[in-house]
Amino acid sequence: MQVLRITRPGGPEVLDFEERPAPTPGASDLLVRVHATALNRADLLQVRGNYPAPPGVPADVPGLEYAGEVLATGPLARRFKPGDRVMGLVGGGAFAEQLVTHEREALPVPENLDLAHAAALPEAYLTAFDALVLQGGLRMGESVLIHAVASGVGSAAAQICRALGARVIGTGRNAEKLSQASSWGVEKTVLCEDSPPRFAEAVREATGGRGVDLALDLVGGDYVPETLRAMAPQGRVLLVGLVAGRQASVELDVLLTRRLHVTGTVLRSRPLEEKMALAQAAERSLVPLFRAGTLTPVVDAVYPMREAREALSRMARNETVGKLVLRWE
Amino acid sequence: MQVLRITRPGGPEVLDFEERPAPTPGASDLLVRVHATALNRADLLQVRGNYPAPPGVPADVPGLEYAGEVLATGPLARRFKPGDRVMGLVGGGAFAEQLVTHEREALPVPENLDLAHAAALPEAYLTAFDALVLQGGLRMGESVLIHAVASGVGSAAAQICRALGARVIGTGRNAEKLSQASSWGVEKTVLCEDSPPRFAEAVREATGGRGVDLALDLVGGDYVPETLRAMAPQGRVLLVGLVAGRQASVELDVLLTRRLHVTGTVLRSRPLEEKMALAQAAERSLVPLFRAGTLTPVVDAVYPMREAREALSRMARNETVGKLVLRWE
Repeated sequence: MQVLRITRPGGPEVLDFEERPAPTPGASDLLVRVHATALNRADLLQVRGNYPAPPGVPADVPGLEYAGEVLATGPLARRFKPGDRVMGLVGGGAFAEQLVTHEREALPVPENLDLAHAAALPEAYLTAFDALVLQGGLRMGESVLIHAVASGVGSAAAQICRALGARVIGTGRNAEKLSQASSWGVEKTVLCEDSPPRFAEAVREATGGRGVDLALDLVGGDYVPETLRAMAPQGRVLLVGLVAGRQASVELDVLLTRRLHVTGTVLRSRPLEEKMALAQAAERSLVPLFRAGTLTPVVDAVYPMREAREALSRMARNETVGKLVLRWE
Repeated sequence: MQVLRITRPGGPEVLDFEERPAPTPGASDLLVRVHATALNRADLLQVRGNYPAPPGVPADVPGLEYAGEVLATGPLARRFKPGDRVMGLVGGGAFAEQLVTHEREALPVPENLDLAHAAALPEAYLTAFDALVLQGGLRMGESVLIHAVASGVGSAAAQICRALGARVIGTGRNAEKLSQASSWGVEKTVLCEDSPPRFAEAVREATGGRGVDLALDLVGGDYVPETLRAMAPQGRVLLVGLVAGRQASVELDVLLTRRLHVTGTVLRSRPLEEKMALAQAAERSLVPLFRAGTLTPVVDAVYPMREAREALSRMARNETVGKLVLRWE
């Protein structure tokens, strides 16, 4: 099989194709023929050498999500059979024509989604669902602040909020991208052009002075102190990304007097049992909403795998709205 | 009745006695004759004019906890009768010979505690119980880091940890005070003499490299970043005090990759229903452990109320281990 591998640390140009033996499924695994994968910022970091793959996945093949077809199953696997369409997260190695995954980490692809759109789904929707619903306990009628709302995770989060009756305020740094957010159910957008960003006052105004119940922060850095100021009493902040920086100066008295909860979270390094539990919860809660058309992956563009380098460069330039998909031809 | 009131913002010297009419209990309230109250840092802040009382309590009479005897009950009160010994938290006004409180905010005083010791109990044990157990979900076998472990809340927290089978590492800035911590079940102490404090390495060593599952931080300031470094994966930090400062520079990548939870919390400003719920939970979970002798309030000294100013000055000088009690004669 072909893989797209990291030949040395660097930019997208260091990726190159290589022929490799196909992996062998374990007892409860699926061998999947990958039709498409999608890009994440973690791929860029890994190509640069800044985000090593966890143990047990290929160190030099990026790719955190896939959609494809089951080619073979281990002797104990019973959830899927050859020919079934599956999608899911992997710890790495999805830039390949085949991969193996435990059957309880894989989700069935809804009939109404093609595999290119299905490949855009796992990372964005499972991250947002896990943060908003499973960890954040989001309830109907609550208000939610979503940073980088035009990103893959941001647009997925906005749709999930709309699906369960929560109200969304979204931030972003690009007016044109933000103009698309209303189609995902975003009620109000705040353009953040300054550094440090200013949005707390606009958020408090939009919530009758109360602040938001939940914030999904994909950005970190100096967004964090301003996010705390935008929270309602007992508000929950879910920190899932650090694009804007790893350090923040925090007003602890805001944290204390508003009784805020701040949770840092990451999917990739989780142990197998937690990844399975998330996939199973998403199969129960999210897959029916894709079938019903309530949720729809936001895909910026689909590239053939041979143009992966161009696609990665495009992501690095922050030009995209939603996800970039890579498809094997 | 006599109250000890704040005559103007300042140090302990601005407190003076005054004669006031006794308060009138509402329909579900108790009128309590206060035998004793205990000091908290919040009293010092309030005397200085830095911590205004919440609406509905006397603005010029400090005091957050009491133990005493029921003098009278409102027509709908049914949990207690005149003569019953009660203790509890109030939003303020406990530096008085009488106070009123909703009957569901009051707890029965265990038979084996005198009222001076009972007065030392509510703030320390309810704060620690709420943070460790109700919010922190502390489980048997977990490891807990308690800052300022020789304080009232710190010593209460250590005893609660021991009672439910959790292991405690305590920090403090005074070697002599820390030497008493083993009697509350603290397994290891770390003396923090430097600024910024260094304890994360010692904590990780004491936990086989893993870090602690839960931290109770009464100190804030530059203890916060070091506390994050001392946490195990998915560890919970409960921030309940800011003696060391209101600002902290936080490494967000530690928060993210270890998937930490940070919760700010405060009791005084909570709405009535939450205060009742905490008192009821504490009556069920804590009062039996005081009866059994598993928990024992750590009292540094009992002062007559007329020496309240000296007692407050002593607390300001950080000389105490456990609580300072003020008793009406």
